[in-house]
Amino acid sequence: MVKVVIVGSVAFDDVKTPFGQVKMALGGSATFASVACSLFAEAGIVGVVGSDFPQEHIDFLKEKNVDLKGLEVKENGKTFHWKGEYGVDLNSAKTIQTDLNVLETFSPKIPEEYKDADFLFLGNIDPELQLKVLSQMNKRPGLVIADTMNLWIEIKKDKVLEVVKKVDLCLMNDGEARMLFNTSNLVKAAKEILALDSKIAIIKKGEHGCIMFSKDNYFSCPGYPLENVKDPTGAGDSFGGTLIGYLAKTNDFSEENMRKAIVYASCVASFNAEGFSVEKLKELTMQDVEKRYKEFEEIVKF
Amino acid sequence: MVKVVIVGSVAFDDVKTPFGQVKMALGGSATFASVACSLFAEAGIVGVVGSDFPQEHIDFLKEKNVDLKGLEVKENGKTFHWKGEYGVDLNSAKTIQTDLNVLETFSPKIPEEYKDADFLFLGNIDPELQLKVLSQMNKRPGLVIADTMNLWIEIKKDKVLEVVKKVDLCLMNDGEARMLFNTSNLVKAAKEILALDSKIAIIKKGEHGCIMFSKDNYFSCPGYPLENVKDPTGAGDSFGGTLIGYLAKTNDFSEENMRKAIVYASCVASFNAEGFSVEKLKELTMQDVEKRYKEFEEIVKF
Repeated sequence: MVKVVIVGSVAFDDVKTPFGQVKMALGGSATFASVACSLFAEAGIVGVVGSDFPQEHIDFLKEKNVDLKGLEVKENGKTFHWKGEYGVDLNSAKTIQTDLNVLETFSPKIPEEYKDADFLFLGNIDPELQLKVLSQMNKRPGLVIADTMNLWIEIKKDKVLEVVKKVDLCLMNDGEARMLFNTSNLVKAAKEILALDSKIAIIKKGEHGCIMFSKDNYFSCPGYPLENVKDPTGAGDSFGGTLIGYLAKTNDFSEENMRKAIVYASCVASFNAEGFSVEKLKELTMQDVEKRYKEFEEIVKF
Repeated sequence: MVKVVIVGSVAFDDVKTPFGQVKMALGGSATFASVACSLFAEAGIVGVVGSDFPQEHIDFLKEKNVDLKGLEVKENGKTFHWKGEYGVDLNSAKTIQTDLNVLETFSPKIPEEYKDADFLFLGNIDPELQLKVLSQMNKRPGLVIADTMNLWIEIKKDKVLEVVKKVDLCLMNDGEARMLFNTSNLVKAAKEILALDSKIAIIKKGEHGCIMFSKDNYFSCPGYPLENVKDPTGAGDSFGGTLIGYLAKTNDFSEENMRKAIVYASCVASFNAEGFSVEKLKELTMQDVEKRYKEFEEIVKF
């Protein structure tokens, strides 16, 4: 049975970084998140692709134990396409082109089998779609995590704030948090997230790691010292997918276990950035992840 | 006896941040570093001021147990003056004006009593002056730490590299490291520092904390979650001063103790940023520092 329901985009990505480029590579927030999640707990995608989506990608996702009952394949439709570029500072992408295609008219329909899931990840996608998915669940899942991106903060800020209000754990990157709450100070931004009733705020800072705020606690997880970052695309989604996957597997939302989940998420995200598209996630094993987890322990020890 | 010799600027600062401003406030790399250092070990300044430097500042430094035998007071000279501004992103200052004044013709002369010191901090100042100070020591001190800034990398890159080659521990911020080695990747920049024979590289990342690289080790120290940063001026200098002060006090250069030194340095630097000029350093006690050190332990634990 699917433990974690993940809504988000499934995409073709054209990505250019100083270290290479790919065209029409498998991407999308639900893709990265579900593959990462599947290292820990079975994930099912709610999303849409066009009839141009190759069997090869379907096979890959199935092989990774990702359930695709909720992945709609639109006849004669074209899969969502994103084209982006990173400069030498790999921390943020410049969007060159976005072809929504099948996403334009997408209205998520959750399979019956998903409606009682205890774990829901609202990956980066239009916040109205995130809310639609949440409302289709039979009961409020035990843990709902939401991610977002700058585009939605720019054009649908109210809806993003509504999502923040409705979820348990809110995930965004530092630039987004600063933008959403109009402050340069991340501590202040995190407090605003908590004031909106999200129990936990996690702010991702790319190479600088991430920070978690809850009412009484603060945790800082370093970035893994990557010498060869190739493409950060999807690292944030992998982070989110791992986070909810680990929490679903352990079913323990204590501060202590949340911190562990974040370190696992940072491990998987760092692997993700070492290759283009799902290149690294494809071959990643739990052994690799555990080894890097141990390295994180050494990195912060004093 | 002076344990730590600190060369650097002693300045009047005009600083404007979104949270206020000060004019002709006490500043300079040697000032911040020596006051921070004096929490742990006696520091002596090698520097210069003009006859306009008020007795009040002299008294303050003496009160903090900073030795001033090496602080030259130039008759009819004007003290170095820096005017800078920070935007909402407090991570980097924009220099509005620099009046070198007495620094223009400054040639450091180390007091005899300082020449056998075991600890030397080459604070941010012209790298040629840093080299001059190092060459005046009777013997190579047991530990030499150097800091620098973007200005010197721009106009005297070769001299900065010469300094890096000659010291044990090299300190710079992330932007400077990227600039000096022409790479966006901090791991690569740190490896270049180590390849130049500096045994340890510490890269300061402002609110994101700092990272330490040595041949076989990597340590990441988070930034303290400051909700009310007022003025980051001098935080890097306080960091450096604390670092060498703690190492002078403990006389232990093991990886383990280096990590502790970095956390202490991060504590003091974070206090520094909570006020303008030396406002916070003025009242800071070891009790405050120890309390924050314990908080750092909680922040990274997983």
